[in-house]
Parts: sequence; structure tokens; C-alpha cells
Amino acid sequence: MDVKTLLEEVANGDLDTQTAYEKLKKLPFENMEYACLDHHRKIRTGFPEVVFCQGKVPEQTANIFERLYDMNGLVLGTRASKEHFDSVLKVLPDAKYCEISKCITVGSPEKTSGKIAICTGGTTDIPVAQEAAITAQMCGSNVTKMYDVGVAGLHRLMSRLDELQDANAIIACAGMEGALASVVAGLVRVPVIAVPTSIGYGANFGGVSALLAMLNSCSAGISVVNIDNGFGAGYIAAQINSLGGQI
Amino acid sequence: MDVKTLLEEVANGDLDTQTAYEKLKKLPFENMEYACLDHHRKIRTGFPEVVFCQGKVPEQTANIFERLYDMNGLVLGTRASKEHFDSVLKVLPDAKYCEISKCITVGSPEKTSGKIAICTGGTTDIPVAQEAAITAQMCGSNVTKMYDVGVAGLHRLMSRLDELQDANAIIACAGMEGALASVVAGLVRVPVIAVPTSIGYGANFGGVSALLAMLNSCSAGISVVNIDNGFGAGYIAAQINSLGGQI
Amino acid sequence: MDVKTLLEEVANGDLDTQTAYEKLKKLPFENMEYACLDHHRKIRTGFPEVVFCQGKVPEQTANIFERLYDMNGLVLGTRASKEHFDSVLKVLPDAKYCEISKCITVGSPEKTSGKIAICTGGTTDIPVAQEAAITAQMCGSNVTKMYDVGVAGLHRLMSRLDELQDANAIIACAGMEGALASVVAGLVRVPVIAVPTSIGYGANFGGVSALLAMLNSCSAGISVVNIDNGFGAGYIAAQINSLGGQI
Amino acid sequence: MDVKTLLEEVANGDLDTQTAYEKLKKLPFENMEYACLDHHRKIRTGFPEVVFCQGKVPEQTANIFERLYDMNGLVLGTRASKEHFDSVLKVLPDAKYCEISKCITVGSPEKTSGKIAICTGGTTDIPVAQEAAITAQMCGSNVTKMYDVGVAGLHRLMSRLDELQDANAIIACAGMEGALASVVAGLVRVPVIAVPTSIGYGANFGGVSALLAMLNSCSAGISVVNIDNGFGAGYIAAQINSLGGQI
Amino acid sequence: MDVKTLLEEVANGDLDTQTAYEKLKKLPFENMEYACLDHHRKIRTGFPEVVFCQGKVPEQTANIFERLYDMNGLVLGTRASKEHFDSVLKVLPDAKYCEISKCITVGSPEKTSGKIAICTGGTTDIPVAQEAAITAQMCGSNVTKMYDVGVAGLHRLMSRLDELQDANAIIACAGMEGALASVVAGLVRVPVIAVPTSIGYGANFGGVSALLAMLNSCSAGISVVNIDNGFGAGYIAAQINSLGGQI
Amino acid sequence: MDVKTLLEEVANGDLDTQTAYEKLKKLPFENMEYACLDHHRKIRTGFPEVVFCQGKVPEQTANIFERLYDMNGLVLGTRASKEHFDSVLKVLPDAKYCEISKCITVGSPEKTSGKIAICTGGTTDIPVAQEAAITAQMCGSNVTKMYDVGVAGLHRLMSRLDELQDANAIIACAGMEGALASVVAGLVRVPVIAVPTSIGYGANFGGVSALLAMLNSCSAGISVVNIDNGFGAGYIAAQINSLGGQI
Amino acid sequence: MDVKTLLEEVANGDLDTQTAYEKLKKLPFENMEYACLDHHRKIRTGFPEVVFCQGKVPEQTANIFERLYDMNGLVLGTRASKEHFDSVLKVLPDAKYCEISKCITVGSPEKTSGKIAICTGGTTDIPVAQEAAITAQMCGSNVTKMYDVGVAGLHRLMSRLDELQDANAIIACAGMEGALASVVAGLVRVPVIAVPTSIGYGANFGGVSALLAMLNSCSAGISVVNIDNGFGAGYIAAQINSLGGQI
Amino acid sequence: MDVKTLLEEVANGDLDTQTAYEKLKKLPFENMEYACLDHHRKIRTGFPEVVFCQGKVPEQTANIFERLYDMNGLVLGTRASKEHFDSVLKVLPDAKYCEISKCITVGSPEKTSGKIAICTGGTTDIPVAQEAAITAQMCGSNVTKMYDVGVAGLHRLMSRLDELQDANAIIACAGMEGALASVVAGLVRVPVIAVPTSIGYGANFGGVSALLAMLNSCSAGISVVNIDNGFGAGYIAAQINSLGGQI
Repeated sequence: MDVKTLLEEVANGDLDTQTAYEKLKKLPFENMEYACLDHHRKIRTGFPEVVFCQGKVPEQTANIFERLYDMNGLVLGTRASKEHFDSVLKVLPDAKYCEISKCITVGSPEKTSGKIAICTGGTTDIPVAQEAAITAQMCGSNVTKMYDVGVAGLHRLMSRLDELQDANAIIACAGMEGALASVVAGLVRVPVIAVPTSIGYGANFGGVSALLAMLNSCSAGISVVNIDNGFGAGYIAAQINSLGGQI
Repeated sequence: MDVKTLLEEVANGDLDTQTAYEKLKKLPFENMEYACLDHHRKIRTGFPEVVFCQGKVPEQTANIFERLYDMNGLVLGTRASKEHFDSVLKVLPDAKYCEISKCITVGSPEKTSGKIAICTGGTTDIPVAQEAAITAQMCGSNVTKMYDVGVAGLHRLMSRLDELQDANAIIACAGMEGALASVVAGLVRVPVIAVPTSIGYGANFGGVSALLAMLNSCSAGISVVNIDNGFGAGYIAAQINSLGGQI
Repeated sequence: MDVKTLLEEVANGDLDTQTAYEKLKKLPFENMEYACLDHHRKIRTGFPEVVFCQGKVPEQTANIFERLYDMNGLVLGTRASKEHFDSVLKVLPDAKYCEISKCITVGSPEKTSGKIAICTGGTTDIPVAQEAAITAQMCGSNVTKMYDVGVAGLHRLMSRLDELQDANAIIACAGMEGALASVVAGLVRVPVIAVPTSIGYGANFGGVSALLAMLNSCSAGISVVNIDNGFGAGYIAAQINSLGGQI
Repeated sequence: MDVKTLLEEVANGDLDTQTAYEKLKKLPFENMEYACLDHHRKIRTGFPEVVFCQGKVPEQTANIFERLYDMNGLVLGTRASKEHFDSVLKVLPDAKYCEISKCITVGSPEKTSGKIAICTGGTTDIPVAQEAAITAQMCGSNVTKMYDVGVAGLHRLMSRLDELQDANAIIACAGMEGALASVVAGLVRVPVIAVPTSIGYGANFGGVSALLAMLNSCSAGISVVNIDNGFGAGYIAAQINSLGGQI
Repeated sequence: MDVKTLLEEVANGDLDTQTAYEKLKKLPFENMEYACLDHHRKIRTGFPEVVFCQGKVPEQTANIFERLYDMNGLVLGTRASKEHFDSVLKVLPDAKYCEISKCITVGSPEKTSGKIAICTGGTTDIPVAQEAAITAQMCGSNVTKMYDVGVAGLHRLMSRLDELQDANAIIACAGMEGALASVVAGLVRVPVIAVPTSIGYGANFGGVSALLAMLNSCSAGISVVNIDNGFGAGYIAAQINSLGGQI
Repeated sequence: MDVKTLLEEVANGDLDTQTAYEKLKKLPFENMEYACLDHHRKIRTGFPEVVFCQGKVPEQTANIFERLYDMNGLVLGTRASKEHFDSVLKVLPDAKYCEISKCITVGSPEKTSGKIAICTGGTTDIPVAQEAAITAQMCGSNVTKMYDVGVAGLHRLMSRLDELQDANAIIACAGMEGALASVVAGLVRVPVIAVPTSIGYGANFGGVSALLAMLNSCSAGISVVNIDNGFGAGYIAAQINSLGGQI
Repeated sequence: MDVKTLLEEVANGDLDTQTAYEKLKKLPFENMEYACLDHHRKIRTGFPEVVFCQGKVPEQTANIFERLYDMNGLVLGTRASKEHFDSVLKVLPDAKYCEISKCITVGSPEKTSGKIAICTGGTTDIPVAQEAAITAQMCGSNVTKMYDVGVAGLHRLMSRLDELQDANAIIACAGMEGALASVVAGLVRVPVIAVPTSIGYGANFGGVSALLAMLNSCSAGISVVNIDNGFGAGYIAAQINSLGGQI
Repeated sequence: MDVKTLLEEVANGDLDTQTAYEKLKKLPFENMEYACLDHHRKIRTGFPEVVFCQGKVPEQTANIFERLYDMNGLVLGTRASKEHFDSVLKVLPDAKYCEISKCITVGSPEKTSGKIAICTGGTTDIPVAQEAAITAQMCGSNVTKMYDVGVAGLHRLMSRLDELQDANAIIACAGMEGALASVVAGLVRVPVIAVPTSIGYGANFGGVSALLAMLNSCSAGISVVNIDNGFGAGYIAAQINSLGGQI
């Protein structure tokens, strides 16, 4: 709805004030929606629509993908099963599936210039990291991956210090005691997005040990997302990266 | 220590290899320290040294402030008492104290161009927000404050939507159910740093209700710092803002 | 048992006092039962008997349904499987089954005049909301459904503000950070029954994040039922609605 | 702001469309605010403005009371100290203070016809119950108090069953194992608002034992507010009572 | 009220059935009260009335003591301060105060024949044990005390095995890891009432470590009361002891 | 080993002191074992050996049953599967299996004179209650069962008050809010063993809500066993009942 | 890389300082790696490389085993399935599998002189104990096993006191209330490594009851590893044992 | 009591077998006590008696110190106040007090040859570390202190790697995210005793964040003591160190 047109119609006498009033009564939220759309439009330069597939019927998921692809040319689906992917593939033959991160992607964003570094403590954290990586890439960011660089063997992380310090934002995925985030944040000057993973057993309580460790880091510059929330971390890192240029 | 000079001295015969070897044995960490210093040097363009005053003896605190001011010309002290400030004032007469946030500041940073928006759910969240604000300002960021704009009366937040959308990063401080972060993140396209505060009673468990709410937000683009950690949020927001230019 | 008749029999000499005493010894609870029956009778004008089917043997469940239908003409079964329904259908061919909410219903209540609004944060909260809706309808209330109106996109909720404000009671079902209840309660003047759902992952701890958020709401007028307890919310909302007329 | 007038001015040519557009840009929230005001106006018939005094400076509290009293003629302050009351008394000599519940009240609402029953498990729950009672009374409801009727001696509660069953809404305040709510809800047909109190020691964890018990009640018709939240319960009970007439 | 008399009056025509009906309407609970009184009468043979003094005004406490002493000749007050005792002493000059357990006692019960053994892990558990001891003694039980016999030095407990095996019931008070209950229950054939105490620090969480240990004992024959609930343990042990004779 | 014989052999010179010393070095624990055996002998008059079958291989379980039956003539197995039972049946054809409680029993104890009452809040608590009942019966106690007498309909419990008050010990099994224990303990003068069950959903946290409620009961005379621990409750109730005679 | 050689090359003019500087820039971590290697070399005298098999693809696991065996001649795999073992067996025909502890071992370490004692509370703790035993043995330690010596029957533990006191380190594995660690530590003078196991049900919360008990032990000399972490305990005990000689 | 003498008296006819039997009846525990004494004797070569002063009356504490000093010549008191020390000083003028760790020491142990390294993450962890240091020194160990070497600035720890690797056991004290333990254990080959401290705020929950992190470390070789339990860590480290010689 176009408010200016409406006002002009009122000014021209094409619309009586009572009818205009009724239309305007709903305006705030249509207006807000408009604001959101505008805002979304900006975001969409590189940010895909995202579908949380888990729990959705494969056929419906395929429909949603098709509609979003028509509108945006760029769709990301997270926590998708092989069945979801098979359904999507029927309507969007260019769709791709990452078995590790369970992500479906359609289309390629324009890339921004800066880079995001994504590191993990161990190999079992990789699916979460990979979800972050694909999300960030679909949001237009370049990604450097440093997997299995946990603090039990510091030299693994140290040998890649240059790459770490070269990023606009860093994602640290770790389960167990989650110390990776603290160590990384002590070595760089950019924001570290910490992703606690549910990797571990016993008193890790499904990721709580890493979550608490990351929230209580002695290093400044760390903020935390939900346990196993690779998507969230990739999204925020891309938001940050899209603000910055190459260092 | 200058590694090149050492190597030149060895090359020139001014230093025997055994002595050089002994010196280099400690090198890794001095080297790393050097990297850190280099890295710190960059950070210091606008980022102050920070002193967590709580639990420190006032006189010692004053000494630390004096030394850091000499090195950096810019010092921030958080969780400082009036006694801390009185001691600091004796050695640094230009020091300032914010009674609300319990911050001591000395010196002024160069400002970067972008802005950070800091909003709170209620008036009781203001001390935490103010710690974030002063931290961000000492790190060179401009700050727009929107206090008491909680979701129980949405129009308070909505009436300042333009200012929100004008920031490079947003800090949302809220206690109780911490819903402010979710609502804000749904309205903007930049990262939201959520700060759960310990405001509330009963089943808020000293801020846990807000913390969990913020970690589980249905809005993308939110990362979380520790309960009442205004400093952490201000620091990260400034890191992000220093990456971005004016929108 | 009829106390008056007993007393008259004693007065008439048809019953000796010792026998009457023995009968009265059990009276308190029969009397209380009577009070309950009386009370139940009132409730039953529109309130069905409710069977929690989960864990019950299908055949037994069918028997219970049959007996309750004979007594009340109105039965509601919650958390019922298809097997439960198949068994009930054999004895009560008019029974209906809602696959989404897993509810079996037999009979139709008289409707009261007012309305209940039921809203959800997302689509995954719908089964819980649907259990609430069917419960409220079986208790005689009209229901307006507003599903998927979560706070990440406020305009969805705002565009239905009139309908919200037109209800005698509102049920807000949300998982994750559960902010929907707070936002809704800030916009209306009737009681909001908040239902935390177990939707989410990681630090939502099976619905605890939403539960705590709802208990700690900054908005007045919110009370909370157990996680995923759609039945409880529908029942209370109907109790409230039956007190009020159309606004 | 009056949208109709604006439209008429546009229709009359007294306002150009660009200026009108600018004015309308802010409309959503002013409009929403208007809606809220309208909504608030209705609420205010019997519902006071409420000030959470705890943590507020006494003088500021007095100012707030004065302003609200001018607007509404009815003010309620909760969790107020004697110091708060002394300050309020200077500007509003008719203010009253309840030492038990720590509530300040100014003015008297019009009463609605129905009644709310408030019961407590023990004598130590009375301050919370009293906050609920004063809140409900300031919202225009009549209140029947049944204190110290806990389940360890059921006859205390049973002897007042008539009064219980005569209410439009019931508030049950109890600490320790919080069983009062379940027993009460089993005896009545109106909504029970359960208030867990922090009364107890050891494994009551500051009210958590009662909170969990109330959320998990085997009786239908119970919803729960935060630990010690007498205000919340009184407010909701009054919302419910204002919907119903005398039974 | 005497139901038989009432019935006889109806039989005799001294009472009309309507009036009798009205009187009987309240009967259940008066009847129940009667039942309770009867039951209490039995209990009172050796079981005192108990006053939880904490939080009560000293003068009121004294009044309660006086009234209970008149009725029962035996009163126990727990968690009483010196101020409580001073007030009680004015009205009941024979009252006694135990500074360690904070108990006030008036009167002496008749003793039953059997014995209760009360043991503690350490010396800091003694106040809780002493509350249990005085409660049990006021309920007519003989008590054998074995304090500071914790499992870190098993010989302390073992050297008193005869006394342990000579009791009708055993109370085991322990903080920290609460292992005493398991070890004791493995050595005897009578019920062990376990009292977790809040003694300890860090991850004892105010007694939770001992509480959980006692609930999860590998020994059969242990039941548990609330943290620091010496009164409860003493009361139950006396209930058990009053059932048994000397072994 | 017979200490007296050893001493006599030393006295007679049949044993040298060094050899005797070596034998005595192990004595404490053999002695203790003897004490235990003696003690066990007493217990065994009516108390069966108990096998926790869960996790045991069926064949091994059968062997254990056979050996224990030979020694004691009385064996109880808890948490046994049908497979366990089938294996036991091959070696002990008189073994019986309770499908509800998953208990295997062989042999019949001598009965003591008193009675234990076992009540449950709902029908879903019955398996736990049945485990308690069979345990108590195998320990020689008579059991009165009152199932489905929860507090949501008090008259169900009240109508069986006489039977409740006729027991030497009462077991109260309840999930959800666990209020049954408090209500029962308020009506009787014997110990109540409370068994929290894991029945419920959402914020019952697998039985924690009932556990906390029972630990925090406002009624005296309640002690608590682990969640779903019917065996433990039956064992303790039988210990208590074996101390008492008929009331 | 050999730093001394480099320095000599610089001294000799065989290497220019710029090239040497570039080489030294990476030195810290290569150096650290070297330190680690050196350190690892020492450790490897008796300490195997360890593979956490759970979640690894069997074929990849076999490859890892093969490579590690080539390097070290000694490999330990924990939490391995039969499938893992079958794959390993194809490349390393001497591999052995322990079904109880799910460990794969290849090769035999040189044995150190001292001994480790490993005790468990019950038979269900044995898999965890066995993982500890195999780990310790693969690290070169001799192991004495005392299984099923829980505190419910102290004589079982006491009869093996000599063996306990003969060890350089003791591992105590127990679930439920975890009291074994406290009792053992009270009897010996060497470090006790406590392993809480997840054995139990209800309020054991997957091993938390034992974990808290062990952390809060009243006996000195106990340190704790994660729930069910037999590997960790065996590794530490071997570290300790390798320091000590035969007592 | 001397068993051999007793046996000789029996052999000699100086003691009749009945009297000897009576004496032996108590033997197990006296014997065990003897075993303990023997064991303690060994321990006492370097291990002091330890008094937990907190909560003890100063005069009594002084008496205990005096008696222990007479027996052992070596006493350690932890968590002692200045008042405790003043009382001890009156009877033992050579007593010393450490204000930081609140430890009282009397006497000096013989030193063993090896060393313990104690490191802390920050300066606020020093009191806990100091308690560990004094305990270890009183147990005869040499201690190397590395305070304030937290992972936010790794070079601080790395620059002291030689000293770390030179110890027989390492104590790592850290609050907040407790990552220090993981990093240290990754760099050494000896056992690391991790001490979580209660340093931090918000979601550190009084040390729980560090406790969980340390229990879940990705590095092998870490065991954990209770929060703030410096004594426990020092004691264990000394036990380990006394087993080892100089590396």
C-alpha cells in the first residue's frame, strides 16, 4: 500500500476521508511491514531467506523453497534431512546438500570482501562449524576453516595465528570445556562468536559446560549463541563481516 | 627484544651463537608477546586499557591507573567504588567517575564514525547499560541511548525505530524475561549484543531467566554476554562498530 | 445419599438413631462428594469430562469414553493416539479425532457468548495451541486462532490487534524465549494464559527457557501453566470466558 | 494526533500531501499509543497505576505518585519502604501504608460486584497474600481472606468451603510444598491463581519447590505467577473478577 | 458437636429436620476435626505441640507457648532465638533453652521403652542432630548420641556398633557427601532417617550434595528429610520408636 | 572362624602366637561379617534377599535366584523383565511374576500382625506402588492398597480414612505435585514414607517436582525415598511395621 | 628445525638475517611443538596413543590405528564398537577387544614397578572400572581389581585392606551416592581418583549425585574426573604410579 | 592395645580365654585404628595434622593446636580468622599466620626432593592457590608459584613452561571459564589437580562454570577438587610428589 498515493487521492477528492481513515487504521503495521521489507531488501543483498527444515513435511518444505527462490534467488535450509533435500531437488534441480551440516542451499550470493575464520576444538564439532560456514557463505562472506585446533595441543592453533588475525570476525565452536573461545579471543582484535557444542558426556550436560565457560570467559570480545547454533553464529559473523572491509 | 638486531649481531660476530641460542630459547613467547603487542597497538587506537577494580586495594588501583595512563593515555576502570576513584584522583586529577555505572575514565579516545545504540527494558537496567555505554565510548564509538523501552509498552521502542536502524551495532540490556533482545533483533539488520541483567526476583534466578531467553531467541542476529556484563557488550559493540562506517 | 430424607426418616421413626449415626459417619465425604457433584453439575454446563489418554489401554479408554458420554453427553480425550481413537470409534461412532493436537471429542457443548484468542509464536507451537483450542471449545467457548505471530516479526501480531483486544481471555503459546506472552499482555486488558512449549534446542532445556521468561514477564496480567499444557490453558481460559459476556 | 482531522485538512487542501506523509510516517506508534491509551482508559476504570517502589529514591517516588494521582486519582505502590511512604505522605496526605505487604495506596476505586478469595497455607505467607489483596482491592474487587488454611490440617480449609465456592477467582499463596493450590482447585469451579512463596528452607530453593508443585498440579484450573508475586496474582484475579458478575 | 444427640433430638421431635440439616451441612469438617482431635489425643500421649518460632514476634510466641502448655502440659519450640526464650520464660518459668539447637522446651513427656540412636558425620552437624534429639526426647523417646563418627575415620563409628544395633530407629545427620547414612544402614536392621545438613562449601550447594547422596543410597532402609530438618527426623524416629518395644 | 577356639588353641599351645596373630589380623572384618550375618539372620525372619534384575543377564539372574532360594527360601527380584522371569521359572517353577511392578517372587514369608497402607495419587503411579506392596509383603507385612486417591478429589481419600488410620506405616506414591503425602500425613499419627514418581511432563523434570514437594512438606511425619523407588519404601515400611503390633 | 644450526649459518654468513628472521617467525610454535614432541617422547615410554572411537567411521578408525601403531607400537582405543574392532583387526591382526569396557588395544607397554588398585561399588560400575584398568595397563601400570566392594557391606572392602594400602594410587568407581571414595580415602595414604558413574535412577541425575558426593568428600586425598570417565582416571593413576616405586 | 602381647599372655596362661575373647571383641576397630595409626605414622613423616578452623571457637582451636603440636610437632589450620591465630599464638608462640590464605602453621616438615607447580588464572585466585601452597609445603613439598598466568594472555604461561615441566604435580586454580587447567595439561606429562574458584559473577554460579569446564577438559591428566578447595589440591599434590623423585 502506498501512503502517498492515498494522500493524493484524498487531496484530489478521489477518496473520501472516512474510507481513507479506515485504510489508515491498519497502516501502522503495513507501514512497519514496509519498513521491514525495505530493511529486508538491504539485508537480502547477500543474505538468503532461511528455512529451519526440522519437523517440516518434505513436500511443504519444497514448496517453501520454490517460493523463496522465486522471490530472492537465494535460499538456505538448515537441519534438513535427505528426504527434505530429495523433495527440494524435484522443484529446484540446482539445489545442493551438505551431508555433514544437513544444509540445503540454492543459488550463490555476491561475496563481500572480508573473511570470517571458523575454528573448532575437535573433529566432532565440525557439523556445527559447517552449518556456520555455509550460513556465512550464503550471506556473502568468505570463510577460512581451522578445524580440530583445540587447546589440548596449542601448537595446532598457534600455527594458524596469521589466518586468525586476518579475519573480520571469528567463530569458535567447541564442546567439553569450551576453552577454545577464550584462547582465541586472547590472540585477536575482532569479535569472537562462541558456539558451545553438545559434544562430550557426563557433566557436560548436553553443552552446558561449554556454554557457561564461554559466557564466563576471562578474555574480552566474546559473545555467545545457543548450544549447537551454527546458523546463528554464521549469520552474526556475516552481519559483522558485511560492515567491515579487508583488514 | 628485537630478533633482527640479534640476528645482525650474530652475523656481525657481536654475539656468539650459544648466547644467541639462549636468548632465542625464550623467543617463542616473547615473539608471541610481540605479536600481541603489535596487535594491541592496533587495538589501542581507540581501545583503552581496562581495569576491573572490584576487590582491588584503592592505592594499588591508583598505581595501575597511573602506569597505564603513562603508556596509553587512556584508561577505563569498571566496578570501581568511590574509594577507588578518590585514590585515582590523587594521581590523575583529570579522572572522571560515573556513579551509576561505577566506571572511572581517564583520557578521551579518537572517535570512529559509526554509532552504537544501547537500549534497556527498564530503568533498573540502566547501570549495566551505562557501563556498556562508557566502555564503547572509551573504545571510540558514538553511543545513542534508549533507556526504558521494554516490550510491555512497545510504542516506546517503536517511536525510536529510526535511531535503532541507524546503528552499526545494538546492545539490548534487559532483566526479567529479556524479551527486548528478540523484539529489537526483529527490527534491524545489524548484530544485537544481548546483556541479561540480574533485575527481577523469584524465578529469575539472578538473571538466568533473561539469559536463557536471549540464548533461545527466535530472532536471528543475537549473541549474548554474561549476566550484567555491560563492559563485555560495550567492548564487542565497539569492535564491530570500528569495522563499519556510517550506514 | 439424601441427608434430608435421612433426617425425616429419623423424625418419623423409620430409622433408629444408631443406624442413622453409622450412615452419617461417612457423611462428610459423601456430603463433600455431593458438594462436588453439585459443583460439577454447574461446571458441566459446557465443561466436558476429560480423559488423559496417554498410557491408557485403548479398550479401557473406549469404555471410559462410553460411560462418560452416557453421563454427560460430552467427552474430551487428550494426548490420544490413533489406536485410542479407533477403539473409541467402535463404541461412539460420532467421535472425532484431531491429528495435530491428538484430541478425541464426542458431543458439542452449548456455546457461551464471549471469545478466547489463542496465538502462537511459530508453526511448531500449533499442536499445543490446538489442544488448548479444542479444550476451550469443548468447554463452550468460541476461539479465535492467530498462529505464527511471534515477536521476530511484530507486524504479524500487530495486524491482528483488534481481534486480540476483542477476547475475554488470551492464550499465548511459545517456545524458545517465550517473549510472545509479554508483548501480547502489553497490548490488551484481559488475562493472558501463557503456555511455554518445549520447542527449541540447546539451552531451552525442554521448555524451561520459555517457562522462566513467562514467569518473569515485565507485563502485568500473565499467569503460566506447565510446559506444553495446552489442555490446562484452554480449561482456564474457558473458566474465565464463562464468567464474562461479550466486551 | 487526530488522523481524521489530518485527512480532512488534506481533503480541504489545508495540508499538502508531503507534509501529511511526514506526519503519517510516525503514525503507527502514535496510533498504537492511542490504542493503548484508549485501552488504558478502559482499564483505568478501577485499575490504578502501579509503582514498583523497591530501588527507587523516596523523593522521586513521591513525585511519581503525585503525577499519577493527578492523572488517575488512584495510585498503588508495591514493595515500598517506610521511607518511601514518608516521602509520599508529604505530597499526598491521604496516602495509606500497609506495613505487612509494604504497599502504599492513594484513592479508592469503584467496586465491582464479585468477590475474590485469597487463601494462604501458613501465617508466613500472609505478606504475599496481603499484597495480592490490596492490589485486587485497588483494582475494584472485593476480597475474602482465608489465611493459614494449609493442607496439614484440612478441616481449616473445609470449614470455609462456602466462601471459597462463592468467589469469581481464587488466589492460593503457599510456600514449602505448595499443595494448597491443588486441593483448592479440586473443590471449586473458578480459576485459581497460584502464588508460590519463598517460605521454607533447605530444598525449597527459595520457592522453587512450591513453584514446581503448582505448575505440575493434578487439578485442572490452576495457573501460576512468579515466586512471591502477590501483585501479579491480585491484578489477574481482578481482571477475571471484572469480567464476571456475582455467581 | 455430638451427632448422636442431634439425631436423638430429631427422633424425639426436639429438633426439626430443616434445622438439623443446616447443622449437619457443616458436619463433615467438624466431624473430621473431631477425628483429628481424637487422633491428636492419641498422639499427644508423649508428643508435644510444636512451635516453629523463627519469624514469630517473641511476645506472641510466649502467648502461644502459654496456651499450648495449658492444653497439653508439653511444648516444644524450634529455631527459637534467645529473645523468644526470654519472652517465654516470663510466662513459663520452667521453660528450658538449648543454645546449640535453638530449642525451647516446657514439660517432660512420659518415656517409651525403646531407644533412638542419633549420629553425625562431624561436629558442625551437631546443632541439627541436637534439634532431632530434643524433638525425639520431647516425643517420649530415649536417645543415644554418637556425634563426629564420619566415614573418613570408620573406626569411630565401628567402635559404637553395639549401641547402633540396639536402637529402634537411627537418625544420621551429615553434610558434605552424606555417606554416613549409607554406611550406617549397611550395619543395622532398623530404619535410618537421613538428615542432609548444609555443612560444606562450593559444590555442596547448601546441602544438595548430601541430599542427593542420601536419596541415592546403595543401602536399603534409608529415607530422607529436608536439609537441616532435625525436627522432622526426630519426630519420625519417635513415631517409629513408639511402635516398637525394646529389641 | 571361631575366635574362642583360636584362643583356646593358643592357651593349649596348639597354635603359636605368630600364626594366631596372622589369623587375627584379618579378624576384624570376618568378625564384622559375623556380626552382619547375625544381624542378617534376624532380618531374614521375614525379609527376603533382594535382586535388582535390571541389567543382569537372565541366566545369571536365574542362578542367583536359585542360590538365594536355597539359602533363604525366600527371594524377591525387582525391575525384572519377562525374560528374567522365564529364566528363573526354569530353575524355580514356583516363582511368580507381577507384570505391573516387574517383580519376581519365590516363597512366602511369615506374616507380622500389623498393616501397611499404600496409596497413590493416580492410576499411573500404580506400578511403583505395586513394587512397594510386593516388597512389603515379601518382608512379612500385610498391605492395604488405596490407589487413585489423589488430592484433586479429596473425597476419594477421605472415604478411606479409617483404613489409613489403621496402619502402622503409610506409603504415599505420587507424581506431578506430590501433594498426597502432605494431605495424608496431616490425617494420621504414623510415619508416612513418600515416594515421588516420575509421572508427569514438562516442569516435573522426571519426578523432581514431586520430590521437592515431599521434602518440603508442611506436615510432620514424612520422610522421602528416591524417585520411583517403590522397593525402598516397601522395605522401610516393613521395617517399621515389624517393630509395631496391631494398633 | 635446529635453531643452533641456523644461528651458526647466520654467524658463518651462510644465511642472511632477513631469511633467518622469516624462519624464526614461525619458530615459537615449531619450537613448542618440538617441546611437546620431546615431552611426548618421554610419555610414550609406556603411554600409548589413545583414540576415542565413538562417532568415528570404522574404516577411518582402522587407518588411525595403523598409523599410530607404526609410530608408537602401542595403541589404545576407547568407546569402540564391535564394528570398530572388526575394521582394526583387518589391518592389525594382533588387536584385542574387551567387550565389557569397549576398549581396543594393540601392543604391550613396558611395565613400571608399582601398582594401582581399582575398586567399584557395585557390579554395574565394572565397565567404567575396566576402561580405567585397561588404560592404566596400557600406560605400563600393574592393576589390582576389587570390584563390588560398596559401602552397603563394608566387610567386602575391609577384607581387602592390605591390597588397597599396597597401591601407589587408587581408583574408586561408584554411582548412586558415591560413598566408596570417601571410605577408601579414609583408609589409605595415597591419592584416590574418584570416578562417578551414571549408575542409578531418579534423583541420581545421570551421575550427578555421585559426582557431587565425591567433590564434597569429608576425606582428604580425593580428586574427581568426569562421570563415567574411566579412561581419565586410568591415565592419571598411571601418571602417578609412574612417579612412584614399589612402596 | 597390643594383640601379640595378648596372645602371648594367653599362651602363658596369664590371661584366660574368656577375658581375651571379650578384649578381642572390640579388636576389629581398635585393630583398624591401629592400622590407621600405623598408616598415619607413615603419613606423618611430612604430613601435618590439619584443623579446619572456620566455625570453631578460638580458645578450643588453640587447645586442639596445642595437643596436635605435642603429638606431631607439625600443625596446619585452614580458614582461620585473626582471632583464631591470636588464640593459637598464646599457646604456641612460634605459630605463623598467612593473611592471604587464612592459614595458621606451626612447625616445619622435612622436605621431599620434588617440586609442585601452582598456577592461577588471575590475581583474585591467589588466596585459594596460597592455601594449596601452604598445605603442600607443610606436607613437605617444594612449591613453585606462577600466579596470574591466565589464558587470555597465553605468553604469560608460556614464558614459564620450563618451570611447569619441571614439577611432579601441578595445581591449576582458576575461576570464570577455568580454561587454565586444559591448557596446562596439554603442555605437561604429570597430573594436574584443577581447583575451580568462585571468582566471577553472573552465570559463573559461584564457581560452577569453572568446575564443569575442568571436569570436561579435552586434555587428559586432569582431576578436580571442590570449588575453592585449595587445601585438598595441596594435599593431593603432596601425596603425588612424595611418591616421585626429582625428574
